[in-house]
Amino acid sequence: MTAAGRPRDPGVDRRIALAAVELFGEAGWAGFSVESVARQAGVGKASIYLRWQTKEQLLLDALAAHVANVADADTGTLRGDLVALARQLLRLYVGTSRKAALRMSVEAPTIPGLAQRCEELRQAQIRAARAMVKRGIARGELPEDTSVTLLLDTLCGGVVMHVMSTPSHLQSTLPDQIDTYAVRLVDFLLRPPLTAV
Amino acid sequence: MTAAGRPRDPGVDRRIALAAVELFGEAGWAGFSVESVARQAGVGKASIYLRWQTKEQLLLDALAAHVANVADADTGTLRGDLVALARQLLRLYVGTSRKAALRMSVEAPTIPGLAQRCEELRQAQIRAARAMVKRGIARGELPEDTSVTLLLDTLCGGVVMHVMSTPSHLQSTLPDQIDTYAVRLVDFLLRPPLTAV
Repeated sequence: MTAAGRPRDPGVDRRIALAAVELFGEAGWAGFSVESVARQAGVGKASIYLRWQTKEQLLLDALAAHVANVADADTGTLRGDLVALARQLLRLYVGTSRKAALRMSVEAPTIPGLAQRCEELRQAQIRAARAMVKRGIARGELPEDTSVTLLLDTLCGGVVMHVMSTPSHLQSTLPDQIDTYAVRLVDFLLRPPLTAV
Repeated sequence: MTAAGRPRDPGVDRRIALAAVELFGEAGWAGFSVESVARQAGVGKASIYLRWQTKEQLLLDALAAHVANVADADTGTLRGDLVALARQLLRLYVGTSRKAALRMSVEAPTIPGLAQRCEELRQAQIRAARAMVKRGIARGELPEDTSVTLLLDTLCGGVVMHVMSTPSHLQSTLPDQIDTYAVRLVDFLLRPPLTAV
């Protein structure tokens, strides 16, 4: 039985995808090659070409699986949904996928063959998040004229800014604060008014 | 009189710095060279080395002048200050400096000789923004226990997210919306509560 004839090992698929995410985060598209991903994943180049025809497809699959995978969460309450969303985003920007997530925003529009698919992934994330807020409005948890966009801009942006403005020597404390910060952020946005009426 | 003996032309300094910002935004640190900046600015390499000894110093000066230049604004009211801050950030992320600003967040920590100074620039921006909110608290415009960090995370992050989640075919409309969005964003954050008590 040849190597190519063996059933594919999902552990290897995952290792390659994670190596692709890490390498893209560190070196960007300019430093992204099948050879480097293979070295980082500890597999041969053939193992990668067995699975992906081009490095664009490899990166896109890796980003879709490990970076752009914000899912709708239907917890039954607006607060529960938004805390779940904030947690997902914090995990994304705090973990090893952080640099890849930021680079995806910066570089994807200039990578041939990736721009359109990355934009589709981003728009799918936005639709999932908007669905949460719209359910909250439908359940009467929010006034009907609430700006879905402003609520999500400030929630998702708050996560990114929190992570980006944490000084380097405190970055290692971020993973332990994910749950606490997610709740504080959501409660801040749903809070009583800041200014006296 | 030799070329080196002429008084320096501030127009040339500015053209070089803007070319450096644009090139860094497009190609990142991997594609950043004195030669490419010179070509983009339409000057000789000697004109750059006359002013900056290394490409690290060139990029740092260019980022400090055109990307990390968020200034304190003391308009007399919290709302006025925050709208001014949001406008500054929107101009930064909407204009030609957008890609450089995003890349600075992603790449600066890994560029030798730039990481520490970029972090100092970032911390100076954060201090300027915190001063605005603290004045609002001191004037009694905000409750004393307001989280300065959460207010700024959501305000500054809201700007970044607004720009990043605008689909490519609508990006060209962003410059005309800066003032309107700045006011909407600030009023959303200082608004009456979203949820009924």
